[in-house]
Amino acid sequence: MSGATAHDAEKTEREHRRLRLELLSDVLAETTRFFHDEGFLQLLPVMLGRSTDPLGPDPGSSVLTTVEVDYLGQRFYLMNSMILHKQLAVRDVGKLWILSPNVRLERAERATSGKHLFEFTQADFEIPRATGAEVRSLVERYLAGLGRSFEGHPALGALGVPPPRFSPPFPVYTTHDLERDYGSDWERVASEAHDQPFWALCHRREFYDREDPADPGHFLNYDLVYPLGFGEGLSGAEREFDPERIRRRIARDGIPPAAFRAYLEVADRLIPSAGAGFGIERLVRFLCRAPHVGDVQLFRRVPGEPVSL
Amino acid sequence: MSGATAHDAEKTEREHRRLRLELLSDVLAETTRFFHDEGFLQLLPVMLGRSTDPLGPDPGSSVLTTVEVDYLGQRFYLMNSMILHKQLAVRDVGKLWILSPNVRLERAERATSGKHLFEFTQADFEIPRATGAEVRSLVERYLAGLGRSFEGHPALGALGVPPPRFSPPFPVYTTHDLERDYGSDWERVASEAHDQPFWALCHRREFYDREDPADPGHFLNYDLVYPLGFGEGLSGAEREFDPERIRRRIARDGIPPAAFRAYLEVADRLIPSAGAGFGIERLVRFLCRAPHVGDVQLFRRVPGEPVSL
Repeated sequence: MSGATAHDAEKTEREHRRLRLELLSDVLAETTRFFHDEGFLQLLPVMLGRSTDPLGPDPGSSVLTTVEVDYLGQRFYLMNSMILHKQLAVRDVGKLWILSPNVRLERAERATSGKHLFEFTQADFEIPRATGAEVRSLVERYLAGLGRSFEGHPALGALGVPPPRFSPPFPVYTTHDLERDYGSDWERVASEAHDQPFWALCHRREFYDREDPADPGHFLNYDLVYPLGFGEGLSGAEREFDPERIRRRIARDGIPPAAFRAYLEVADRLIPSAGAGFGIERLVRFLCRAPHVGDVQLFRRVPGEPVSL
Repeated sequence: MSGATAHDAEKTEREHRRLRLELLSDVLAETTRFFHDEGFLQLLPVMLGRSTDPLGPDPGSSVLTTVEVDYLGQRFYLMNSMILHKQLAVRDVGKLWILSPNVRLERAERATSGKHLFEFTQADFEIPRATGAEVRSLVERYLAGLGRSFEGHPALGALGVPPPRFSPPFPVYTTHDLERDYGSDWERVASEAHDQPFWALCHRREFYDREDPADPGHFLNYDLVYPLGFGEGLSGAEREFDPERIRRRIARDGIPPAAFRAYLEVADRLIPSAGAGFGIERLVRFLCRAPHVGDVQLFRRVPGEPVSL
């Protein structure tokens, strides 16, 4: 590239980033309005907690480590997610949502997935005594409204991207269906094969997702997968609330129990609930069709990429 | 207390906490709407940065330590505040604001101040090429609107608290005036002596606050102090943007430069700006007249108090 062309490319990239941040800001305003109007209380995030999300039934496989902080005689963990806190909060607060920054020290090889960051923000919500079907319906209503509010958005026009067209209800599959039809890499392949988001039910994962009491080995959880190859954008579940079943699941997963002692000590106060969390950056990436989720961050946080500030 | 009375007291406290969280949620919705309508872009928070707020000209006096995290060959600091990031961002983004969670590992003795937490959330905003007077006027407009929107708020009624009556413009003093009139403990004493918030200008503090070029030893910064003894609720400044002056201030303050190397490397891209940050929990505490700022947190984060989850 000549100097002038490189300069032009840098200028274009700067303008595109600014347009993506305009979209992100409008997504935040719309999301805040949506949850407020739906009667959810917005809570503030917790950053350091006495227990945090194990990130899967096999912790250590998905991140390098969870950050530990010792402060005035107690050990804290930097939040991988607020799942354990929101599950407890829902009893006293009712329907709640949080703009929750999550730190996940991902392995460097996840740089190339296009969708991993080592810090990002989730819109994390939970509803007392809800079913998964009710949560999925709420998410569909949210996305349909978001799609309508972004029709004719000048930033999408300037980026040359069509407005999102969400036509719920979205197709519902189980992970068993998807694996049978698309193979083990189904998330990517099925995402590329769809032009609408779809639901993937029944993942074997963290102890806080409820196992179907009528069908052991099956799980009452759900992901929303964006179409056109953008992949997973939301995870949720009906929650396990029985302290004994939680203890058995932690033992079965072989998770070191010390990091969940604080959670287990309050687990007798849990009630049935369901909810979900969706990454704001992944949603905005999908809306503006950005090559990498880091492209919608002003301060990029891509695993393995050097960070300037 | 009899068992029944203790039970009643606990029930009342639980109901009050729920009412305070309703207020907090409405403050977040109003704040989001205000900044959106004023043309600010809402950014997402950074949690781990290569430099963070030194918290004063004498770091170490106000917090025990800043959390350090090593990740894939780089050292990060858990955000004491996003000041350095927003100062850099304002050039590319323009007017911006962030709901920014801050971790500050305060000394245990700060438990009794009524206003210190070891994690809390700031509404942090910055405006390119603004003056302090413009920022103060924006804050006054924000609080006046908030006051109007909370007139007749059912949660305030249920808590038995009068609605806030903000009558800007608020009185403006310098710290020199305040110290002369109220002594070295002026923040508390002057706060108790006022029934409206007031401005306190000219604090000797961090290197990123601009020193008055026309009057060295004087600083172009400002705090907003809530009345009725609630104390400081907002800090802001016109910023220093000259890399050489920033270097000299860091040397003068005797701050170890390693933690600010990343910031100094991008300091030649800084532009003049001004802004402020205000703690959401302190604002809500003031609105509902709670005894301690921890009373508006669902998960209390008071220095020295044991944390359950």
